[in-house]
Amino acid sequence: MKVSQLSRASGIPIPTIKFYVREGVLEPGIPTSRNQADYTNEHLRRLRLIRTLVEIGGLNLSRIRDVVAAVDDQTLNTHELLGLAHHALAPRVGGKLRTPDDPLTVAAVDRFLRDLGWRVSAANPARAVLAAALATLGQTGGGADISAFEPYAALADQLARQEVATLPPAASRAAAVEAAVIGTVVYEAVLLALRRLAQEHHSAVRFGGEDR
Amino acid sequence: MKVSQLSRASGIPIPTIKFYVREGVLEPGIPTSRNQADYTNEHLRRLRLIRTLVEIGGLNLSRIRDVVAAVDDQTLNTHELLGLAHHALAPRVGGKLRTPDDPLTVAAVDRFLRDLGWRVSAANPARAVLAAALATLGQTGGGADISAFEPYAALADQLARQEVATLPPAASRAAAVEAAVIGTVVYEAVLLALRRLAQEHHSAVRFGGEDR
Repeated sequence: MKVSQLSRASGIPIPTIKFYVREGVLEPGIPTSRNQADYTNEHLRRLRLIRTLVEIGGLNLSRIRDVVAAVDDQTLNTHELLGLAHHALAPRVGGKLRTPDDPLTVAAVDRFLRDLGWRVSAANPARAVLAAALATLGQTGGGADISAFEPYAALADQLARQEVATLPPAASRAAAVEAAVIGTVVYEAVLLALRRLAQEHHSAVRFGGEDR
Repeated sequence: MKVSQLSRASGIPIPTIKFYVREGVLEPGIPTSRNQADYTNEHLRRLRLIRTLVEIGGLNLSRIRDVVAAVDDQTLNTHELLGLAHHALAPRVGGKLRTPDDPLTVAAVDRFLRDLGWRVSAANPARAVLAAALATLGQTGGGADISAFEPYAALADQLARQEVATLPPAASRAAAVEAAVIGTVVYEAVLLALRRLAQEHHSAVRFGGEDR
């Protein structure tokens, strides 16, 4: 297909498509004349992946380059590929956490995860989030006892087991990454929103607020 | 105490304390001479609350004003006060969600919450997050069936019931708000981080990635 057709099919403007080719995240089309090139369904699939990474994942170009390179790197297996896509989506929340200034906090997180028996890589950025959460609780006098995380770990384990078991079979590596990005971003939002709504409900039940 | 002592005790620089007084979120001290004023433990408690709202909650001055006004408004009961503090912390996640362009999406969320039997106010901003999540799934072809949220709602219900039941008795309205802000920000981060770690673990189990 021509670049104009590729643009219509992907919903991405022609100048943006040319930008992606220049930046090396999209292969150039096959030249058919001095001013025209031919694009395939492979190009379209790649553009759809990039669009998801930008629009849903909120990734910048440098992170998109990493993810796209991982999709193309056939030495990575599916588990490694999804891990990489996952790590590119930095977890962020509504407020701020403090940076732990003490190696004991990081060691406590390592021990906690080991005791759970979870197989997680040292590179998973969620480890640092847990350490920062622990440091924040300690510095605000809330008490830095990591055992308070246990009920959360039990629920997270239950949820993740279910989520991984019901992953639909992906048609391709790009489709698997797309599904992982959408699933992560959307269901993190769903989980936090439902927790807040449930908290309002249980607070109403316990503290006797009236319906309005 | 003098303003210099208040500054030391709260960890907040004197110019920032004066700024908070000018902006009306901190009562002025009681004048003791032309250039000096006396500050009480009440001032210190208020500064600690403001510091938590800024440093952990990431709130700007206008939202701080709302929260502080609610703490002072004795016509609000604890449930209403905590709800207001909660709503001031906009839920945010690592990626982006699309805005629903269709009233059916919002209606589906309302019906979903009603079917759960949860007592949640129409003003809870988490409703809009759920609608945006549903819209994002629909627009990316992931399927916009809200029943996919059910397992998340069941876990959120379980978690929130536990969290509300174990809330420590707050010494004051300000302390209750502080605890709510810290709890919300820190445990949202903990929950998402643990879910991601558990996903890596279960992905390793299912897809046979090796330990590294």
